[in-house]
Amino acid sequence: MTLPTIGFIGTGVMGNSMAGHLLAAGYPLTVYTRTRGKADGLLQRGAGWAENPAALARAADVVITMVGYPADVREVWLGAEGIFSGAKEGALLIDMTTSSPALARELAAAGEARGLMVLDAPVSGGDIGAKEARLSIMVGGAAAAFARAEPLLALMGKNIVRQGGPGCGQLTKLCNQVAIAGGMLAVCESLAFARGAGLEPERVLRSIESGAAGSWGLSNLGPRILRGDWAPGFFVKHFLKDLRLALEVAREEKLTLPGLALAEEMYARLAADGGADDGTQALFRLYEKGAGDSLRRK
Amino acid sequence: MTLPTIGFIGTGVMGNSMAGHLLAAGYPLTVYTRTRGKADGLLQRGAGWAENPAALARAADVVITMVGYPADVREVWLGAEGIFSGAKEGALLIDMTTSSPALARELAAAGEARGLMVLDAPVSGGDIGAKEARLSIMVGGAAAAFARAEPLLALMGKNIVRQGGPGCGQLTKLCNQVAIAGGMLAVCESLAFARGAGLEPERVLRSIESGAAGSWGLSNLGPRILRGDWAPGFFVKHFLKDLRLALEVAREEKLTLPGLALAEEMYARLAADGGADDGTQALFRLYEKGAGDSLRRK
Repeated sequence: MTLPTIGFIGTGVMGNSMAGHLLAAGYPLTVYTRTRGKADGLLQRGAGWAENPAALARAADVVITMVGYPADVREVWLGAEGIFSGAKEGALLIDMTTSSPALARELAAAGEARGLMVLDAPVSGGDIGAKEARLSIMVGGAAAAFARAEPLLALMGKNIVRQGGPGCGQLTKLCNQVAIAGGMLAVCESLAFARGAGLEPERVLRSIESGAAGSWGLSNLGPRILRGDWAPGFFVKHFLKDLRLALEVAREEKLTLPGLALAEEMYARLAADGGADDGTQALFRLYEKGAGDSLRRK
Repeated sequence: MTLPTIGFIGTGVMGNSMAGHLLAAGYPLTVYTRTRGKADGLLQRGAGWAENPAALARAADVVITMVGYPADVREVWLGAEGIFSGAKEGALLIDMTTSSPALARELAAAGEARGLMVLDAPVSGGDIGAKEARLSIMVGGAAAAFARAEPLLALMGKNIVRQGGPGCGQLTKLCNQVAIAGGMLAVCESLAFARGAGLEPERVLRSIESGAAGSWGLSNLGPRILRGDWAPGFFVKHFLKDLRLALEVAREEKLTLPGLALAEEMYARLAADGGADDGTQALFRLYEKGAGDSLRRK
């Protein structure tokens, strides 16, 4: 049996690891990404290069995208040299970017009109999850498309759940981001409290990570925070985009989520203070000595 | 070797399980609690009853307290019929209540003046952790007192760490509560978002609990929330007390913790709305349909 040919668009922190797993499993892989240098590793390992999304789609049975913002998704899928203008009939197209649920529904409808299968399948688990192929993958779209995608998704993640029709993957990912937003406030405030009270934060972490305060963020980002390591597993600028997508949906649903609103406010301040390209754990900097004033509500 | 005689004060949700483990391990146990009916199970299993804390302390090598509020700790330790008025010289006294760090330091000093060993050793892990003897126990006090207490603490918990001198157990527990506060906002807002967006929240939980949004609260309290089960693992009124203790310390340290302040505000509203005796997961009720208005900031 010949393996389907895969085109992968967007080889940033997450995409690089994810595409690497497909390559390692023996799939013929072509990549495209805005900054070609970011694909060097994959190209050296045997991936092909496409000049644009349309060219990539013309040669692919399956196209996967993992880009930055909904606007990038729109450009890469619907633009003049976009996926839709090159996709082969019957192709399976999967957007794994965290993007707008409304855009996901729009792409699914556009795909259906062209005889293509479309899924939204955003992920959670951060850079570590991507590297270790332990991502949680939240899928929206038709059951038949999901069945076809599952063996590929299983190479990148461990917990793969179809949440419903088009857009439901994105909505589930936003639930995930809402949970992470409050969680990051919790982690940062707890460690700031520990330091402020004169405790040894590393030792505090040992006590609290195994009890009712335990979380992925505390165990995985807590140690980075205490080392002052702001390297991005997940960019502040992308997280801020997600929080705004979630606030938008919440507004439509007439839901008031004050924790989410507070997190958005603080991440916006962090981004404005030069933290846009840091990892989400850099939120802790707003709590460091001298930064406190900027947190006080007017 | 004769096992030391233990006195246990406060047999509520947590204390009942904790004292039960000591009894099961064969320690001679005497109990006292404000509402005698709450000790019935332990008395039937062979525990003795003391008429007041002083009487309990007169017969005990080790006294453990697990009561509600700092005011209760003060009464039980320093009151006319309190532990200090009955304690045998050389006795080991351990307060496992989540209480004020300043009070813990006061008790340690008062104990030292009387030739007693005093530890603050609050716990985390909720009713489940207490039942399964898997609590995290955060200890403050002298190293020698800790060495003597450790075999007993090991019957009630799994992760037992001495965090420093008197009060450091309490401070660490407050770090834990600060982390839980933001975490509960996260869990409630995420599930409210899922429901509002028309997803199946149980299925969403399956997707997000294993990724970067994963937390003890999401996995343990999420399902209770979705069943509408508000039975207390940990009381809202006690959690509110903890959040206020933490805010007090934060103010002294000139730390601004907006997530903690928001959580305190919301739990205060929940308590005022009749939720004081529910479990902390009842915070979700503030996010249910129709409750949204009360959340909007003025």
